[in-house]
Amino acid sequence: MKNETETEQALAEHVIGWMALHDRVGRGLGVRVVSVKPYAVTLALTVSAEMLNAHDVCHGGVIFSLADSAFAYACNSQNDSALATAGSVQFLSPARLGEELIATARQVAQQKRIGLYDVTVATADGRTVALFRGSSYRVQAALAPPQPQPGGAEPAVES
Amino acid sequence: MKNETETEQALAEHVIGWMALHDRVGRGLGVRVVSVKPYAVTLALTVSAEMLNAHDVCHGGVIFSLADSAFAYACNSQNDSALATAGSVQFLSPARLGEELIATARQVAQQKRIGLYDVTVATADGRTVALFRGSSYRVQAALAPPQPQPGGAEPAVES
Amino acid sequence: MKNETETEQALAEHVIGWMALHDRVGRGLGVRVVSVKPYAVTLALTVSAEMLNAHDVCHGGVIFSLADSAFAYACNSQNDSALATAGSVQFLSPARLGEELIATARQVAQQKRIGLYDVTVATADGRTVALFRGSSYRVQAALAPPQPQPGGAEPAVES
Amino acid sequence: MKNETETEQALAEHVIGWMALHDRVGRGLGVRVVSVKPYAVTLALTVSAEMLNAHDVCHGGVIFSLADSAFAYACNSQNDSALATAGSVQFLSPARLGEELIATARQVAQQKRIGLYDVTVATADGRTVALFRGSSYRVQAALAPPQPQPGGAEPAVES
Repeated sequence: MKNETETEQALAEHVIGWMALHDRVGRGLGVRVVSVKPYAVTLALTVSAEMLNAHDVCHGGVIFSLADSAFAYACNSQNDSALATAGSVQFLSPARLGEELIATARQVAQQKRIGLYDVTVATADGRTVALFRGSSYRVQAALAPPQPQPGGAEPAVES
Repeated sequence: MKNETETEQALAEHVIGWMALHDRVGRGLGVRVVSVKPYAVTLALTVSAEMLNAHDVCHGGVIFSLADSAFAYACNSQNDSALATAGSVQFLSPARLGEELIATARQVAQQKRIGLYDVTVATADGRTVALFRGSSYRVQAALAPPQPQPGGAEPAVES
Repeated sequence: MKNETETEQALAEHVIGWMALHDRVGRGLGVRVVSVKPYAVTLALTVSAEMLNAHDVCHGGVIFSLADSAFAYACNSQNDSALATAGSVQFLSPARLGEELIATARQVAQQKRIGLYDVTVATADGRTVALFRGSSYRVQAALAPPQPQPGGAEPAVES
Repeated sequence: MKNETETEQALAEHVIGWMALHDRVGRGLGVRVVSVKPYAVTLALTVSAEMLNAHDVCHGGVIFSLADSAFAYACNSQNDSALATAGSVQFLSPARLGEELIATARQVAQQKRIGLYDVTVATADGRTVALFRGSSYRVQAALAPPQPQPGGAEPAVES
């Protein structure tokens, strides 16, 4: 029998795996899931030539997309079906061609419906590229289909 | 001899045309330049299947990318070489597959170095999808190469 | 018999009058209600010596307080009992001793629970001092006590 | 002879002491300086009846004012004469009459002119009331008058 922490971790892995599979923008950008915990996730991508803007640095929209995906995966990680209502980003240092960007999302606050999540986007050597703060709102529905259960048991998660 | 307004309009068209050509993210998303004025621009894109997230609505990163491109084109439209320092977006209504999104950017304030720009993202039938507010910072350089001059004259813009 | 518009206007006047009376910060700052409409309000204050910061310009907290009161009055104007969940302000021009600041709040979007309001803070001669954007969340309760009814009728508003 | 750390700490104490003395809004609210470090400061205030809004909780403007003062003291602590260009606040939990609010400001990033500072506002027992993020811009001037020097030496700080 699993304890609560194991169940939450398994659910986070299930939901975020499912989200990453269905996040066509993240897949198009080559976003990789580095690690997963309940309400926390680390993603990575490598800046390619297609991600550059007219200043020849990584387009802010790519950085926002990476952070926004990390935010979405984190706030939905327990199948909460939360939608983003707002996001703000501070650009601290430009990201250049070939750099790996690592986005680390964590829950700052979660009330019944409203949540607040912070995402740090940094290079592999620790330079902070951007800080993102996102607001979420929970609707009353599950997002991902239920986890398959060993032994054919009923799903623990309502769908 | 051109008057000042015509010169500014021609410069805006030149710079924004050059930026759109070098904005690989905008091109990848199929962003179209609808209209251009000094410090103002309207862009459009159509939501495709590749732009959907796990909720089956347009990924917030796509909406931000569209708004961020509009902001960047507007604040650089007189070849000011301004960089985005921050952007915030409020998501008001989800955008769905096949909808056309129109982003209208305008200058709210411009000081010596710091600028503030608002972008509204709406559907073709007028439903507001998102509001974006961006902060820019001018560096001391031109962005685009000079406009070609009729008759081989020297460029009017320092490069 | 009143039509709907008259009823909404009367309710806005009642609720905002009640709020202004109970807004001890606004009263302490000398905030004046200039005009009222459903989901829109204009307030004013005069920058006094007590409002200055160490730079000898009006403290950002005073400007935020004025804008936040305008936002709160606007989003509660139909007795919605909405709370502020977030506010952001861009400071565009310092306000100086003796200047009158006029805050104009309007509803940008209102969903079932979440609302978005913009407030412009300007001087009497039209210089924009700050732009404020606030997010609200409706709880299930009325804020102000019911309006007194002519002729002793029952209150139209549940309290 | 002082080392660099001692000099920076002494300067922070001098400038923040001077700012607190000249921050008439902070003084009016009863803001107390709890601790000071270079580019970091902790302030406190106690929620009084005059700080309540019509919902009978602490007015958002008071919370913003406290955080904004902490931000201003932190970003000016080396006499940098930095002005606030923007601030955003997320309200996570209401503050009630009699509660002590502690605002802790820290530098997140500082470039040549643009800085980013985060302030957490919490109660004495650790409940987070609000998160504030402020952007600053350095102008070319000192803010506070020079520190008095022991033995009548010349001031080390240009004024």
